[in-house]
Amino acid sequence: MTQKELKILKQYIRQSREQWLEEFTTYLRFPSVSTQPEHQDQVQACAEWLADHCEKIGLRTRLVTTHGHPLVLATTRSSWTRPTKPHFLIYGHYDVQPAEPLELWKHPPFEPHRTRKAIYARGASDNKGQHFVHLKAIETFLQTGTELPCEITFLIEGEEEIGSPSFPEALQKLRNELACDAIVASDTSMPEPGTPAITYALRGVTALEVTFHGPSRDLHSGIFGGCIDNPAMALCQTLAQLRDPEGRITIPGFYDDVVPLSPKERRLLRRIPFNAKELVEFLGVPRLFGEKGYTPWEQRTARPTLEINGLTSGYQGEGTKTIIPAWARAKLSMRLVPNQKARKIQNLVARHLRKLAPKTVRVEITPGHGAEPYYLSPDSLWIATAAQALRAAFQKEPVLLREGGSIPIVPQLHSVLRVPVLLIGLAAPDDNAHSPNEKFDLRHFDAGVRLGLFLWPALSEIAQQSKSSPRRPKK
Amino acid sequence: MTQKELKILKQYIRQSREQWLEEFTTYLRFPSVSTQPEHQDQVQACAEWLADHCEKIGLRTRLVTTHGHPLVLATTRSSWTRPTKPHFLIYGHYDVQPAEPLELWKHPPFEPHRTRKAIYARGASDNKGQHFVHLKAIETFLQTGTELPCEITFLIEGEEEIGSPSFPEALQKLRNELACDAIVASDTSMPEPGTPAITYALRGVTALEVTFHGPSRDLHSGIFGGCIDNPAMALCQTLAQLRDPEGRITIPGFYDDVVPLSPKERRLLRRIPFNAKELVEFLGVPRLFGEKGYTPWEQRTARPTLEINGLTSGYQGEGTKTIIPAWARAKLSMRLVPNQKARKIQNLVARHLRKLAPKTVRVEITPGHGAEPYYLSPDSLWIATAAQALRAAFQKEPVLLREGGSIPIVPQLHSVLRVPVLLIGLAAPDDNAHSPNEKFDLRHFDAGVRLGLFLWPALSEIAQQSKSSPRRPKK
Repeated sequence: MTQKELKILKQYIRQSREQWLEEFTTYLRFPSVSTQPEHQDQVQACAEWLADHCEKIGLRTRLVTTHGHPLVLATTRSSWTRPTKPHFLIYGHYDVQPAEPLELWKHPPFEPHRTRKAIYARGASDNKGQHFVHLKAIETFLQTGTELPCEITFLIEGEEEIGSPSFPEALQKLRNELACDAIVASDTSMPEPGTPAITYALRGVTALEVTFHGPSRDLHSGIFGGCIDNPAMALCQTLAQLRDPEGRITIPGFYDDVVPLSPKERRLLRRIPFNAKELVEFLGVPRLFGEKGYTPWEQRTARPTLEINGLTSGYQGEGTKTIIPAWARAKLSMRLVPNQKARKIQNLVARHLRKLAPKTVRVEITPGHGAEPYYLSPDSLWIATAAQALRAAFQKEPVLLREGGSIPIVPQLHSVLRVPVLLIGLAAPDDNAHSPNEKFDLRHFDAGVRLGLFLWPALSEIAQQSKSSPRRPKK
Repeated sequence: MTQKELKILKQYIRQSREQWLEEFTTYLRFPSVSTQPEHQDQVQACAEWLADHCEKIGLRTRLVTTHGHPLVLATTRSSWTRPTKPHFLIYGHYDVQPAEPLELWKHPPFEPHRTRKAIYARGASDNKGQHFVHLKAIETFLQTGTELPCEITFLIEGEEEIGSPSFPEALQKLRNELACDAIVASDTSMPEPGTPAITYALRGVTALEVTFHGPSRDLHSGIFGGCIDNPAMALCQTLAQLRDPEGRITIPGFYDDVVPLSPKERRLLRRIPFNAKELVEFLGVPRLFGEKGYTPWEQRTARPTLEINGLTSGYQGEGTKTIIPAWARAKLSMRLVPNQKARKIQNLVARHLRKLAPKTVRVEITPGHGAEPYYLSPDSLWIATAAQALRAAFQKEPVLLREGGSIPIVPQLHSVLRVPVLLIGLAAPDDNAHSPNEKFDLRHFDAGVRLGLFLWPALSEIAQQSKSSPRRPKK
């Protein structure tokens, strides 16, 4: 891109800002809460507004119907056929979390409130703001007549907050027109406001529920206590054996597929701002605790875990009820790291629970949901290139992150389209995603739009260098 | 007692039976459910009917008001002053368990249904029938003009099914007029229909609730899982250490005060009919389990236990919620045997929990209620004498039992009045106490009345032999 072109683009951005914030406000007014039945019409209306808006800025757009909420598919391509230029996909979601508890909002969640520094509304940061800025960047190219060195397709779904149930099927159906060189998803966080970040790894997750059945009903602990086992005690004694005193999971094979952290990655992770004392205070825990030999940041992003998410047994009301409970139940979930496989770990845990359980109880195991971990080497050219674009847009050195949570659609996109997914988070940790008074920082709004000016030309060069035509998905 | 006197008594019993069953039916019609607010008037009405009935059969009677339901106090003594003859107390309760679930009753619970073998109604066995027969035995002496060799006082309370909250205070107030040589309480079970039993030991109980507090709120297991402890896991690992694989409680000092079972007692307990396979089927457990070195009967009546009565932590609904719970809670109760002390054991358990708990959680312990264990040597003359009377009344060899449950008022009576409490159970194990279709076996009704003819003369002789005048309670 020439300096002249860049100047034109920047000028367009400057002069459009006020109008864009108005448009963004309109977008935020839709209570597109995917999980609440009373908002279903508004989810649809939001998708339609977004599709109209994409058309308006010059994208070929269509609403893809699913069993649930529609996907908005909008592209710079003049037809849905195979592009000749590099092709990138931008993922986002137009649905939002419920706004409750409403009484904690300083301004109504769907009447956006703008200050000098931020716009407050449900969905401002998660995720409307984070893909809206990408739209505005592409609009800038299109409306100034500046040639984009690539084709861009937006894939904005409406079910992320309910676990993207229609996504895998839609992805399979659309896989030919979505074939691309790389994917950018902005639905992650920066470590602190103003510091851009690329998340190069996500943990996966798998869950199960285990129930130990003892007597056929709760029994009087005086009459029968002593000669039969207590299922709650049996469960505690079994679960207790799953983790050793040094925080290591003791299930045979649990760590077999874990890719060890390289010394270089460990150096990278140590660079991330971290204050243990602040974290202890923020979480309200007496102290930190984790697997020996790893830093807290490594423990919570780069090491697998096993957590008890819930325990249920016997009497839970006020006071005392002297019973031997008929059954005891635990909900367990395991966070996974590359290259662990959700199904394999679920089976390992289930098998080990059955092995450890005493013969005094009958074991029932119900498998839960899963998501695979995701990993893109921090040494990859894609990451280096995106980092450079972020540096230019934010005027600050970006950090490379692993994230402890799971984003199921990321490994899905990766496994179907077989291209890198660049997780470029534009949300600040204090944006109150999923909480009252959600906001989107206007500095990140501006930097997010600016990012497009540097990102797409740079990524296009990488795609060109890799010579081969765009990769094709697995059939 | 002369043969002639005995003949007169037996004749009176025979000719009164039909009327007594009518009276019993009237008594059973009162829904004297102490725990249900809608039945409070009927609890009072039942007490008044019982007091009237005691007067009618020749006892001096008064209703003793308490903070809750009144006690019925009825005596053969002509004044409430110190008796010259031996004096025995009979304990019972006129309140009953709720009748719910009503749909499982074949006949309405408060419309007594009589067959050739039994009377069905809520409270028939627990406890109206068991003290009604004692009343009828005393009536037989009084109405035939046969001299009783002792004085008898009935103490029938109305709050047993809600834990006898007013009993300790009333007992203290009445302790001088209740001073006696021994107490008979018929509120326990026979091992099988037709086989009389004396329960010579009861377990005590003490309870507490322990909560492990971790983070100040439930946390996202992806974002934070790995670097902080999971309070549910910490709780499981702590509770797991309270019992070893051989079923022994590992809390230091837990067994210190336990009086070991003598070889003679172990022989006695082995005499009780017991079928492990039937118990396994009845309870629906995969197999029995208990402290190594003891039989199931010993484990459930003569050995102390620690039970988890309830577990609560985190998410308990459908499906998965991937959180680290803010806290985890267990309700624990310990069954105690002579000479363990409820408060001491509660303190030992609480102290050990605090010692075992990891430093990653804050421990909160809430003490629960307690009851002391009770023990009367099976070698005592009181037991031998009561056993002889039972043999005569039932025409069957009685068994001596320990019971695993706790009856708080028994150690209370014993500690205030300082005399033996003879637990002569007239309830059958299939009487459905606390369950739908409760009944009282008419064979036990008849034998229970007959018992009085043998019991009171025999006990009076023992009391006379002990020479000293009736023991006095502690001031």
